[in-house]
Amino acid sequence: MMRFLEIFSNGDSQSLRISQKEIPKPNDDDVLIKVEYVGVNRIDILQKKGLYNSEKEDNDVLGVEVSGTIVNMGSKAYLYNPTLKEGMKVCALLSGGGYAEYVTANSSLCFKIEENFLTMEEAACMPEALFTIWKNLIMIGDMSLGSSILIHGGSSGIGTMAIKVANLFNAKPIIVTAGNDKKCSACIGIGADYAINYKKEDFVKKVMEMTNGEGVDIVLDMVGGEYLRKNISCLKYKGKIINIAFLDGAKSEIVIPEIMKKEAIITGSYLKSSPIDEKCSIACDLRSKLWPFINKGLLKPVIDSVYDFEKVEQAHERMENSMHIGKIVLSF
Amino acid sequence: MMRFLEIFSNGDSQSLRISQKEIPKPNDDDVLIKVEYVGVNRIDILQKKGLYNSEKEDNDVLGVEVSGTIVNMGSKAYLYNPTLKEGMKVCALLSGGGYAEYVTANSSLCFKIEENFLTMEEAACMPEALFTIWKNLIMIGDMSLGSSILIHGGSSGIGTMAIKVANLFNAKPIIVTAGNDKKCSACIGIGADYAINYKKEDFVKKVMEMTNGEGVDIVLDMVGGEYLRKNISCLKYKGKIINIAFLDGAKSEIVIPEIMKKEAIITGSYLKSSPIDEKCSIACDLRSKLWPFINKGLLKPVIDSVYDFEKVEQAHERMENSMHIGKIVLSF
Repeated sequence: MMRFLEIFSNGDSQSLRISQKEIPKPNDDDVLIKVEYVGVNRIDILQKKGLYNSEKEDNDVLGVEVSGTIVNMGSKAYLYNPTLKEGMKVCALLSGGGYAEYVTANSSLCFKIEENFLTMEEAACMPEALFTIWKNLIMIGDMSLGSSILIHGGSSGIGTMAIKVANLFNAKPIIVTAGNDKKCSACIGIGADYAINYKKEDFVKKVMEMTNGEGVDIVLDMVGGEYLRKNISCLKYKGKIINIAFLDGAKSEIVIPEIMKKEAIITGSYLKSSPIDEKCSIACDLRSKLWPFINKGLLKPVIDSVYDFEKVEQAHERMENSMHIGKIVLSF
Repeated sequence: MMRFLEIFSNGDSQSLRISQKEIPKPNDDDVLIKVEYVGVNRIDILQKKGLYNSEKEDNDVLGVEVSGTIVNMGSKAYLYNPTLKEGMKVCALLSGGGYAEYVTANSSLCFKIEENFLTMEEAACMPEALFTIWKNLIMIGDMSLGSSILIHGGSSGIGTMAIKVANLFNAKPIIVTAGNDKKCSACIGIGADYAINYKKEDFVKKVMEMTNGEGVDIVLDMVGGEYLRKNISCLKYKGKIINIAFLDGAKSEIVIPEIMKKEAIITGSYLKSSPIDEKCSIACDLRSKLWPFINKGLLKPVIDSVYDFEKVEQAHERMENSMHIGKIVLSF
């Protein structure tokens, strides 16, 4: 048996409590990981509140990324990822189940950790951010040398890592928005060229100033709502808006000729519902393109705070109140 | 001097009247065409009414496509398009000026006509539709063998030609919407696999039935308004919606998670405001990919009606009332 965090419905609200269940058994292509740390993501909070329609095959335990040690391997796990063996320290992208002492992970979505260059705390912060950024900025956004980019929520877990990855690609300029001056400073500190405090300044006006009236190639947006139309105003001809969340609202009014005039591309994605084949393909790209930097200590996450898993509600509250800069982590 | 159709403002309404002005002089890379026929497009009506913000360099005379005879060539026109010579029958895409006895055209955007296989009436119907379709379905939409496609306004000038070009690519299925049964029959007659009378049936439901619940790869839309959100419902995973007009309204409400869930791509374009380099590139593609079919009589436009240019207001009225199936042409 193992401890895990169970969703507990208390009338109108949901919270998490420590409970016990059987240790999961890995399928043929899975590994079993003894969890050390789990990265906290907004999707965890949505799922806790019943606001994310999880697919049937999804795990009903929260948690989409962990670091830990491989303690058991399915019979074919080695074939899918020959770099793995029992006793190895890894981080992994999950479809769920990370808020627990043990979790199974698809072996293709595990990454060997060199602890000289990445602590296990840091390792738990990598998968969700890196997969999201690779899928959206690289595969969908075609970000490359010299791409100009606007990242909303620049001080979030995804935002801070996006700034770092955009720097590796030499995207220029990297512009971010954040909700206070401290967050803006943090973004500049890790490599953003400009940071706009959206509570003080009109981000459309600032972006156009910073790009000499040209606009940007890519907008990565987690705000939604009325930002969508404003994002179109920030775009260069043939630029792309990529929606990965909608913290300010799902519905948005757009003006079709504004899209046509710029040949703007509006798109977006959910990492969690992406096909497994695509996730495996992203994992290969991450291993070959980004892991060489990670294994030299040249790419690390920004960690906001680490909570004992018993204090998970405090961790969630910190995220819901947008107090954090970078990633929040739970230790198991 | 030459005759042309001048926009005449009569208080609240604008109409066209015959007037005289100097025959334009071709620039170095232009040819001068004596116009035989001019294709009528919705943009002509919008421009007449002052509803299209034409760029400064645009011609204030209506008309974006003509057929006729080259009567004079700029000094470098031959360099830009070595297939041309004086006395040759051509059709041409224009930035304006076609509602006149003579017009200048960029030599790169002219196409030699083999009258055995395409009449001069038909030739005047080709440029706007072919450039629009190539840019949107091929370049933006990546339409290819087996692409499933939904074309709104299937019986329009663009729609009828889009059905024919989609057939050349063996797109499958080709689904169209149209506003009455006669228009639907016409679409089936020229190669649509299914035609939905949108006044009688819910097109989203029908498209999903016709694609076994999968949806389509590409939606080509000239309706806009509330169609945008419905179009998202018609899409396959990673499908594209391409907006080329907005007859039912420019504003549209969308729901961001509906885009994210399908990784839908919403985009669009104005042919008229595309950079000249891109238009030249499209012209090259049309010459090498579609003209071989045109020169064998295998690709022809659907002509709805031909009006003497003095009856231009009747022609416009027919288009505004959506009475037409295929292209409306003016003869000069």
